[in-house]
Amino acid sequence: MSVATLLEYMDDCRTLVLEEMRGMVPRDGQLGRVLYDLVFDYPLRDAKALRPALCVATCRALGGSLEAVSNSATVIELFHNAFLIHDDIEDGSEKRRSGPTLHRVHGTPVAINVGDAMFALTLEPLLDNTRLLDLGRALRILKVIARMVRESAEGQAMELAWIRDGSWALADRDYLRMVHKKTSHYTFITPVVVGAIVAGMRNEDLGRLRLFATALGAAFQIQDDVLNLAGHEAQIGKEVDGDLWEGKHTLILLHAVRTCTEADRKRATTVLRKRRPTESSGADRMMPLKELVDRLEADCQVSPKSAGALRDGIAHVEGADQYKTIDDVRFLRDLVFRQKSVDYARTVARKRARRASHTLASTSRNWPPSVHKDFLRDLTDFVVNRDH
Amino acid sequence: MSVATLLEYMDDCRTLVLEEMRGMVPRDGQLGRVLYDLVFDYPLRDAKALRPALCVATCRALGGSLEAVSNSATVIELFHNAFLIHDDIEDGSEKRRSGPTLHRVHGTPVAINVGDAMFALTLEPLLDNTRLLDLGRALRILKVIARMVRESAEGQAMELAWIRDGSWALADRDYLRMVHKKTSHYTFITPVVVGAIVAGMRNEDLGRLRLFATALGAAFQIQDDVLNLAGHEAQIGKEVDGDLWEGKHTLILLHAVRTCTEADRKRATTVLRKRRPTESSGADRMMPLKELVDRLEADCQVSPKSAGALRDGIAHVEGADQYKTIDDVRFLRDLVFRQKSVDYARTVARKRARRASHTLASTSRNWPPSVHKDFLRDLTDFVVNRDH
Repeated sequence: MSVATLLEYMDDCRTLVLEEMRGMVPRDGQLGRVLYDLVFDYPLRDAKALRPALCVATCRALGGSLEAVSNSATVIELFHNAFLIHDDIEDGSEKRRSGPTLHRVHGTPVAINVGDAMFALTLEPLLDNTRLLDLGRALRILKVIARMVRESAEGQAMELAWIRDGSWALADRDYLRMVHKKTSHYTFITPVVVGAIVAGMRNEDLGRLRLFATALGAAFQIQDDVLNLAGHEAQIGKEVDGDLWEGKHTLILLHAVRTCTEADRKRATTVLRKRRPTESSGADRMMPLKELVDRLEADCQVSPKSAGALRDGIAHVEGADQYKTIDDVRFLRDLVFRQKSVDYARTVARKRARRASHTLASTSRNWPPSVHKDFLRDLTDFVVNRDH
Repeated sequence: MSVATLLEYMDDCRTLVLEEMRGMVPRDGQLGRVLYDLVFDYPLRDAKALRPALCVATCRALGGSLEAVSNSATVIELFHNAFLIHDDIEDGSEKRRSGPTLHRVHGTPVAINVGDAMFALTLEPLLDNTRLLDLGRALRILKVIARMVRESAEGQAMELAWIRDGSWALADRDYLRMVHKKTSHYTFITPVVVGAIVAGMRNEDLGRLRLFATALGAAFQIQDDVLNLAGHEAQIGKEVDGDLWEGKHTLILLHAVRTCTEADRKRATTVLRKRRPTESSGADRMMPLKELVDRLEADCQVSPKSAGALRDGIAHVEGADQYKTIDDVRFLRDLVFRQKSVDYARTVARKRARRASHTLASTSRNWPPSVHKDFLRDLTDFVVNRDH
């Protein structure tokens, strides 16, 4: 299957899921403007629809029908977008899918609440599964979703704790455990497992599919981190180097910090512990005052000594040294390329993708040939070779 | 039933629910410190346990057992605490149950995630109901909970939109609709309805119980607003006048703004649209710089004219006029008492409480006498006569 066909498969799933989603979200004139219109903000931005595509493909490759799976695939996409909204706030992200993040446009309070509303909106469709499928499958899917939400929150908690504590002495296995919880569960494991359950697979046969999805999830996330450093903004829809500005715990940065000289490690961890500057951070807010001091000094209204004292005072208030500078980020960027950490991450991603490939091949040996089976197989290559 | 007995009934429910909650939250050494310990932060603070008590009392008054209802009552309490965490962030609240709010201690990212984890943790126990009760009741409870989460997010969205737009020309019915969604649903309607479902009440008989809970919910919230102005901090566990600082849309403030002179209304809405100052707001952060300018001027290092320009510059940066001052809050406080808005709110609360009383009396006429039935009856009086 060509990459174009792969993307087309996902795009068809996206169309389906957006259509289904419209049926799940109430139309309310008064509440539309402040709540339900915002539920569609992220889903309507350009996105791959990887999760629903995985869910649909697994189900159909196993002989399940599109009608049976579309409700669950949509619920997964709704969860995904709710997580994105809350994650963007928690990570202080500025851009998402080529636009400003929801909380940057509507404020944190509204964004938290829209995410909560989306969690709420998933519950009723999950209960509809008792009617659309049967009770046994509906309840199994609910259990899988409950696990997914919990694992995602656990993964996020791990990462937030590393940020809070400024932890950078971490092994690859710490990173992979975090990614397993924070990304693989809701991006790969849950879509694949839910698709299989809809198609009627028994719990005891789900193990190898879970292994496949786990390996693919790690490959995907590591490649995502690679693209953030090596990709182009227009292609990835986020800022290039955004991970460096955020000081995100990626396999790449962990490798660089672990393998570099003691002096570089010291500087890197100091830089990584600084926050990213935002429009509302001290540095920008103090600009008018700095300009005022410059002007007063130029007009000889204030002595150079007093101006210096005032500038120190301003720097103290704005806590300038707590924010990363462009030089800080350049240093990090040079470091990861010098330590060949991007190459290292690419190798790890390829290894995981190969493992995913093998596991899928052995699991799906007896599945009948279909475009859906092909999609799953070729997606694995796509994940580590994609440029967006 | 004396107030002491009433409080004891609730306290017993609190003990039960905390015990059950321990079984719902994973024990994980690594994740405990950064996630699961924080799940217990609000529940372990001093609280009335009103919601589980309502759920337990309704179930038992209708002949249901404590064993059957304790799981659902605990889930409701867990949801309540998750809402509180997110609400405190959204409202910028500083105190909750006599302590600093969770996001003030652990930061907004951690607090959002703890709330999300708590939502996740409610799902598995709700599925356990299929085993503890029966399938029909378990699914009906899930539906009620799904509705509850959605209504709460809708109520919150209404309030956030009023804040964003600075809307103060609102009628009592706007306020009551918001409270119905934001408070009554998860504090009264859901606990009572879930308790009745556990006890086996049919859907078609739930209507009058819902009316009872709706009226009681409005009475409760209005009384909460009254206490915030007329109570004592040690008793309510929140700051007195916190609602005025936050510019919360209470029935009291809506009445005051609606009934006062045009001049007062203009000043009140201007004040109410200002944000509350926080420790991280400009006003506090700029203090060292203000002191520096004072010192430089006192030492004749800076002329009075330049010092004046610097002070204007500082005031401009900190946007001092965007934050409420103590005088602003005093003005609001004087206004609501002058307009007798607290008395007005008390009257509305009493009227709703009487309606709740009558509805409960007619609904429960044929229920056998029990301490649980007495609890529900006397709770209605308590709600509008309580001082905390």
